[in-house]
Amino acid sequence: MINKLVIFGVGLIGGSLALALREAHFCKTVVGCSRNAVHLQKAVDLGVIDSFSLDPAEAVRDADMVLLAVPMGAMRHLLQQIKPVLPADAILTDAGSTKGSIVAEVAQVFGADFTRFVPGHPIAGREKSGVEAAISDLYVNRRVILTPQAHTDADAIAKVEAMWRVTGALLEQMPVELHDQVLAATSHLPHVLAFSLVDTLLNMPQREDILRYAAGGFRDFTRIASSDPVMWRDICLTNKAAILAVIAAFQHNLGEFAALIEAQDGESLHNRMANAKQARDNYVASL
Amino acid sequence: MINKLVIFGVGLIGGSLALALREAHFCKTVVGCSRNAVHLQKAVDLGVIDSFSLDPAEAVRDADMVLLAVPMGAMRHLLQQIKPVLPADAILTDAGSTKGSIVAEVAQVFGADFTRFVPGHPIAGREKSGVEAAISDLYVNRRVILTPQAHTDADAIAKVEAMWRVTGALLEQMPVELHDQVLAATSHLPHVLAFSLVDTLLNMPQREDILRYAAGGFRDFTRIASSDPVMWRDICLTNKAAILAVIAAFQHNLGEFAALIEAQDGESLHNRMANAKQARDNYVASL
Repeated sequence: MINKLVIFGVGLIGGSLALALREAHFCKTVVGCSRNAVHLQKAVDLGVIDSFSLDPAEAVRDADMVLLAVPMGAMRHLLQQIKPVLPADAILTDAGSTKGSIVAEVAQVFGADFTRFVPGHPIAGREKSGVEAAISDLYVNRRVILTPQAHTDADAIAKVEAMWRVTGALLEQMPVELHDQVLAATSHLPHVLAFSLVDTLLNMPQREDILRYAAGGFRDFTRIASSDPVMWRDICLTNKAAILAVIAAFQHNLGEFAALIEAQDGESLHNRMANAKQARDNYVASL
Repeated sequence: MINKLVIFGVGLIGGSLALALREAHFCKTVVGCSRNAVHLQKAVDLGVIDSFSLDPAEAVRDADMVLLAVPMGAMRHLLQQIKPVLPADAILTDAGSTKGSIVAEVAQVFGADFTRFVPGHPIAGREKSGVEAAISDLYVNRRVILTPQAHTDADAIAKVEAMWRVTGALLEQMPVELHDQVLAATSHLPHVLAFSLVDTLLNMPQREDILRYAAGGFRDFTRIASSDPVMWRDICLTNKAAILAVIAAFQHNLGEFAALIEAQDGESLHNRMANAKQARDNYVASL
């Protein structure tokens, strides 16, 4: 049970969390905070939050759970605003797609020995975004990865886990760096590839014919190129090292593939693709 | 109306064409030919073809329409077998994903002035393959691209168009080279990227965690990596120049993307991704 949950940035992610907790009567009150009163009023009208504030310091008064869901570029300033007034027993958590950068930001503002921050990443989403897209079952059977550190309070971790479990999510823990590397490979790289593919095709001389004849494969493949560019810019900026590393690995692999085509090495091409098919089929079967 | 349709290679593509034509009573008889009697009997049992032959020369006797749907590696030998006995007014057509190579093969065997070959490419498919996967409505509202040459008989083109129209397909024509370039961009490149992505991830040290945490984006993105490796090997071999060209363009684009990440140029990253999103959203809206 949460007394007062404060959500900074009431969008799809924070909004869906609030709806799920509301359905389960898990919070006495849910307060939203951002700089957009119209948007926050909408969240109230939609029944996502109970009330809102435009003042972060006021919002966190008496809060026991605080979810940080603002863009990374706004995070440092927000943390600085709430630090002086955050209750001593309040828990700070987040829902960002990368963990290393926010761990560093919180350490910078709150000190490296701050024990009440539980970094979290719910692996869920929809093509739509914003509070209007929020749904109470977004997290059912979805994984939420927490990346607590050695000094993070065990009871804070337990409370964040309990909160997410109410939504139907499955909880796991990973070290910060491994999280960022794994997500770079499984999520960030595919998005970068999709953006690059669309951009490459847009810049080809046969562009009109290309868009005309793009078939189902292109549509599926580039679905993630319809993702929110603000969020993805932030992911690229905050997970730079891991993303550059996987891009380099991919470039190397694609170069090998091209070399096999150049050499017309049909056998190696077949084996490479057969292995990939096998691995992907196994993966899908395991879901 | 077709008197005798002969299909070399009775799989998903040829089988579905046969089923559609059968439903419309468009062929007096449909004969299948390959080297696999068990497979061909299955096609008869499934009602896809009326009869079969294991001898190409016997199969094409009295044929008026011949569909070549064997793997590219088997094409030259097949053409050599049927050349001596193909009726003078018979029409040769195909359903391959690349056009330049088969146009060259036919020209090599039948002569550069052979007027009865109408290269075709139905843009349709399913994840499953083989005659068991054949369905009569596979081509409904799907595009079939014909790539006739200057010397191709107009009546041959008209008859191939008429045949495909019966299946519900939409007919278009393109120059051979443009077809291969456009398909390299919209179909072949995405498949190569999907194969490379799976292969890259398989070879990373964090492989187990990666496969564990691969989310919906990875699943959708790599769906086409479950494609038939034999078919895709042949596509890579027969559309080498166009595919290498688009791979190079893509690698250049991805390199630019990586450079923006390295430089932490958030504005350029955002604009690049916003443009891609816009273009893709427009494309999907136009479908």
